[in-house]
Amino acid sequence: MNALKCNEQWRLAAFPQGDIRLSDFAWSEERVPAAGEGQILVRNIYLSLDPTNRLWASGEETYLPALKLGDIMRGITLGIVETSRHPKFRCGDLVTGTLGWQRYALSDGSDVSRLPRENRLPLVTYLGVMGSTGLTAYFGLLEIGRPSPGETVLVSAAAGSVGSLVGQIAKLHGCRVVGLTGSQAKCRWIVDDLGFDAAINYRSEKVGEAIGVKCPDGVDIYFDNVGGDILDAAMGAINLHGRIVVCGQISQYNMQSPQQVFWHMHRFLIHRVRMEAFIVIDYLPRAREGLVALAQWVKDGKLKYRFDIIQGLERAPAALSRLFAGSNDGKQLVQISAEPGVG
Amino acid sequence: MNALKCNEQWRLAAFPQGDIRLSDFAWSEERVPAAGEGQILVRNIYLSLDPTNRLWASGEETYLPALKLGDIMRGITLGIVETSRHPKFRCGDLVTGTLGWQRYALSDGSDVSRLPRENRLPLVTYLGVMGSTGLTAYFGLLEIGRPSPGETVLVSAAAGSVGSLVGQIAKLHGCRVVGLTGSQAKCRWIVDDLGFDAAINYRSEKVGEAIGVKCPDGVDIYFDNVGGDILDAAMGAINLHGRIVVCGQISQYNMQSPQQVFWHMHRFLIHRVRMEAFIVIDYLPRAREGLVALAQWVKDGKLKYRFDIIQGLERAPAALSRLFAGSNDGKQLVQISAEPGVG
Repeated sequence: MNALKCNEQWRLAAFPQGDIRLSDFAWSEERVPAAGEGQILVRNIYLSLDPTNRLWASGEETYLPALKLGDIMRGITLGIVETSRHPKFRCGDLVTGTLGWQRYALSDGSDVSRLPRENRLPLVTYLGVMGSTGLTAYFGLLEIGRPSPGETVLVSAAAGSVGSLVGQIAKLHGCRVVGLTGSQAKCRWIVDDLGFDAAINYRSEKVGEAIGVKCPDGVDIYFDNVGGDILDAAMGAINLHGRIVVCGQISQYNMQSPQQVFWHMHRFLIHRVRMEAFIVIDYLPRAREGLVALAQWVKDGKLKYRFDIIQGLERAPAALSRLFAGSNDGKQLVQISAEPGVG
Repeated sequence: MNALKCNEQWRLAAFPQGDIRLSDFAWSEERVPAAGEGQILVRNIYLSLDPTNRLWASGEETYLPALKLGDIMRGITLGIVETSRHPKFRCGDLVTGTLGWQRYALSDGSDVSRLPRENRLPLVTYLGVMGSTGLTAYFGLLEIGRPSPGETVLVSAAAGSVGSLVGQIAKLHGCRVVGLTGSQAKCRWIVDDLGFDAAINYRSEKVGEAIGVKCPDGVDIYFDNVGGDILDAAMGAINLHGRIVVCGQISQYNMQSPQQVFWHMHRFLIHRVRMEAFIVIDYLPRAREGLVALAQWVKDGKLKYRFDIIQGLERAPAALSRLFAGSNDGKQLVQISAEPGVG
């Protein structure tokens, strides 16, 4: 049956130069492959869009092997097993994995995680708070940032999928939390709904001054999702033995010659700062520990989140661009096909 | 008797702008003070000159309180107790402390350390390998850098007082060690005498390329004493989970608007690098641990060092300038008065 279905795919057509363009991707259609012995065929339901996708498309080796032109664009998806010839998977199982920008994918099971069959949270959470987004916030803040009660935590991209969780987890650890976002509506959301202590609109305020006003005791932890001038401004307010968690640098990814200028390296030395980068894949061996904590907080209503779901695989390139414009409102997903039991 | 002697001093006359000038300091002479109850009078024998002195003179609060104009210039010295009205010190005891650019100093004992009365190493070592210089190398490399055997350690200012020890301690821990220095003679010294595996002359070689050639397996630890372009070049070669130990930034101290430009922050993120600054005073509670290890290595002939001793307190400003020109040849000291039993 599947062999008659069409598998729609986005392939990498050009390595993006600067801003992502639709022409960097090529739409292709081919027959849905059949699962061989030991394989599963997954129908993708949701595709996660993340700033790091821009790095994956760069043609350079990053923390994952470089993509070649013509490859299916790499992406994390949530899907349902439609055919299983693998002993550990059943038809109807739900999985997440790096299955790409396509409607159907084959897997030998080694590159996917099966969702729990019972007591599940809403499906989309497994691409958000219960997925690599949540684990990024959890391990980045707690393992790299190491917050103590009473400390001030500053977060950039604070209304983003990772930043919004970082702020809430920091609040759960007794910190004062200030978030940087790009609109008044997002500022209101993180303060009024998520419980941040203060927000800074980096588009309308002078960031350095605003940090001084809203972090009167300085910054003990800066959780950086953006890099660039905001990273430097945060360094200008960093306290003795402060920590800078380098999670992402979205301000730099579209630049042809990314360059980070620090006017405050002096303070870095004087204040004995630690700046440490991490990528969530380093913590996957400890994923269970993080997911148990995150699930409990979600069930207790202590972590709030929003999803921004665009309909249709054909809109995946546009959805990725939204992240760089900051026009997404919550964790950005593309819905590729219907959830089971829905349509 | 002391009241008749003259105490010569250098006071801060201007906050240096850019390069240090003689006019930033003012020579003054006053009577040697008498030790009050609970005090000791110390005659300074050696003054240590260190790049960080430039920060102390800046008029800005650093990791120590700011100096004011007219204050005696701050400096670490080694001296001999000439009068003691303190129960824990005897006449003839040798001490180190931050006693300033002057011939005589009073102390209540809280800001000095007494040298061992027996089994002493050469006096100058207590301002070098057996002092804050040695502890800086020891704790910076081992606690912040955390070297493992087989790793590549790159050190800047590698013929300097700290860098030369860092390289040798890294060798003792089984690392491959490459040093950056500013002359062919220093390159030869660190390779031929100190046992570095390779040296790079940053004045005559293209640093980025040379690092690539001489660190063919990349850089696991970069011990930074200089900042600026060399720090960026080292970051361009840093390995997965590499560590950058920020010990000093001598290239920046004389700049009016110090600015650090990184072209390789991308690599910082992708390779999950940790960059951490430290100042040895954070480790003083653990000084004994470091000094025991350092003394043993010195006694075993495993750590070599050189001193560059300028005669006469009047030449202290010039001696400090030598550090920034890189014209010192070993740990820079000024001899203020004679060692006991010598003159």
